[in-house]
Amino acid sequence: MRAARYHGVRDVRLEQIPEPEPGPGQIKIAVAYNGLCGSDLHEYFNAPTFIPMEPHPLTGAHAPCVLGHEFSGTVVAVGDGAGVFGPGDRVAVRPTYSCGECPACRIGAPNICKQLAFHGGSAAGGGLSEFTVVDETMAHKLPDSVSLLSGALVEPLAVAQHAVNRAAPGADDTVVVIGSGAIGIGVWLALRARGIEKVIVSEPSGQRRQAISRLGAERVVDPTSQDLQTIVDEVSGGVGAAVVFDAAGVPQAFADGLSVLAPHGILMVVSVYERGLDFNPTALLTGEHTITTSLTYSDTEFAEVIANMERGVYGADGWTDVIGLDQLTDAFELLRAGEAVKILVEI
Amino acid sequence: MRAARYHGVRDVRLEQIPEPEPGPGQIKIAVAYNGLCGSDLHEYFNAPTFIPMEPHPLTGAHAPCVLGHEFSGTVVAVGDGAGVFGPGDRVAVRPTYSCGECPACRIGAPNICKQLAFHGGSAAGGGLSEFTVVDETMAHKLPDSVSLLSGALVEPLAVAQHAVNRAAPGADDTVVVIGSGAIGIGVWLALRARGIEKVIVSEPSGQRRQAISRLGAERVVDPTSQDLQTIVDEVSGGVGAAVVFDAAGVPQAFADGLSVLAPHGILMVVSVYERGLDFNPTALLTGEHTITTSLTYSDTEFAEVIANMERGVYGADGWTDVIGLDQLTDAFELLRAGEAVKILVEI
Ligand SMILES: [Zn+2]
Ligand SMILES: [Zn+2]
Ligand SMILES: [Zn+2]
Ligand SMILES: [Zn+2]
Repeated sequence: MRAARYHGVRDVRLEQIPEPEPGPGQIKIAVAYNGLCGSDLHEYFNAPTFIPMEPHPLTGAHAPCVLGHEFSGTVVAVGDGAGVFGPGDRVAVRPTYSCGECPACRIGAPNICKQLAFHGGSAAGGGLSEFTVVDETMAHKLPDSVSLLSGALVEPLAVAQHAVNRAAPGADDTVVVIGSGAIGIGVWLALRARGIEKVIVSEPSGQRRQAISRLGAERVVDPTSQDLQTIVDEVSGGVGAAVVFDAAGVPQAFADGLSVLAPHGILMVVSVYERGLDFNPTALLTGEHTITTSLTYSDTEFAEVIANMERGVYGADGWTDVIGLDQLTDAFELLRAGEAVKILVEI
Repeated sequence: MRAARYHGVRDVRLEQIPEPEPGPGQIKIAVAYNGLCGSDLHEYFNAPTFIPMEPHPLTGAHAPCVLGHEFSGTVVAVGDGAGVFGPGDRVAVRPTYSCGECPACRIGAPNICKQLAFHGGSAAGGGLSEFTVVDETMAHKLPDSVSLLSGALVEPLAVAQHAVNRAAPGADDTVVVIGSGAIGIGVWLALRARGIEKVIVSEPSGQRRQAISRLGAERVVDPTSQDLQTIVDEVSGGVGAAVVFDAAGVPQAFADGLSVLAPHGILMVVSVYERGLDFNPTALLTGEHTITTSLTYSDTEFAEVIANMERGVYGADGWTDVIGLDQLTDAFELLRAGEAVKILVEI
């Protein structure tokens, strides 16, 4: 079968590899769509960070690895002892593996397992291949009304859902989302699904401001020509932002975010910073502000996202493009250039 | 009467100023003891930061100001309408003024009022004078068993109490205190009062390690010769520190603190950083760690500290020195040189 495998920086190859068969407790999925994410881009252009060059301590996997951790598909075969799903079932997959033994796993937070591995990067297979095999416990059934295309968006939207759940803004809070790339849009959709109405998006790129506006965002600010603080004050009645989601990962976003926080406000960093910045912890003092982050998701959050999709709160419309596997490396270039928001590969 | 007034950097003068008389709702206190704090030191050696050179927006006060916000004393006169206290009552004073109108005050967090002012720095009077007048609502009565010397420690211990309450470590959590100057000792005492047993103190100065050891701290680490991570792992069974209190305010403390956190651990910054440091927010990601801070206290926390003193959990023994008002500037030099932990001025 055909699969996209990561060999190193700027070296992802479409290769023929053996078709995997399901072992005990596993299911075999014919992949329908797989989304490309910022971490894939990072691995492709910068350096292998999540993809292990040596055997991963939990899975034993190492490069070359099949890429793709945001995928949906149809069950085509079932291993011994796996009985929840049957052939024909449409599923989205929680692609994370956790060790079950580390401090995080022991406190019930496998999403931050010290040996966290991903299907599609640090495991035997991934979503950028015709078929893939996962543990049955990793699959979530898609309701009839949720398309396979939307199904491939469950993973990135679960990332956003987890960040929003962790920050837990109240219904009347003013919330700021800095950056309206794919992560910022995901957070914005999760906030809308939660019923948060006072959401301000700050984004310097005109193209990205248009993208999120098309989805229905009403308060979209250009921080290069508008004063974010003034707008936050207007919307919040001078209180400030209870939560700022930093979905940009640049020092200006960090500074802007801290500057508009309400008393006890939270800066939730949902982006990856390629390098450090100058920070004085005492900047948090006068408002007893908090900086925190959010990593992956729980199965409950996967289910929340699928339920939101079933309710019709959000889906793939308006922020996604679909390409074929042959166009994969072109897609990476488009994403890096900011000429697409979210690209899904149809397998 | 005699008072110590701040005129500017390295310019604190013992002056004769008029004795204040209580207005409506106020009490006049004959000050017994007033503690010196890191912020006093900062104002004296570095720059006026909390002491306003222009009229303070809330109190109208400005330099020259009477110094001293950590004080106890005996009520000697009572203004019209003040009836809770009478002459002879021994009190500790919550020295903060809040506006009642800003977002923080409106959410019930006057401790982070946007116009926060201090009696002793940004108000009409302060503790480093023979008499001072405060609103009756700012005073807390000292039980018979709590000395006036201990009473002057209520304010700094309430700062520590607030930080510990905000971080809210569990009884079985491993907690690290970095820095065992006066703030670190205060935090350590507050943790002991809360019944937290697995507390590790990290402090490079031998003198300061001895000071906190004399108070009863059992796990006191020299980070220049011992590996903090190893000790945290031993004490926590490999889990890490649920909370680290940064009572040092230097980049090494910040880095050490982040490095030993448990999953979902909190770095609680209780020190003031004179300058910024290099920080990559993504350092928080793998453990979903949190950085936050803590400012002042509530009346409830004042009461908690006084109750702890009444229970005999802590007091002035073992970490305080008492001087006279004439030795004030010498005391600043001693504190800066690290040759004293906590100095109280007997008025
Ligand atoms: Zn991803
Ligand atoms: Zn684990
Ligand atoms: Zn102080
Ligand atoms: Zn206020």
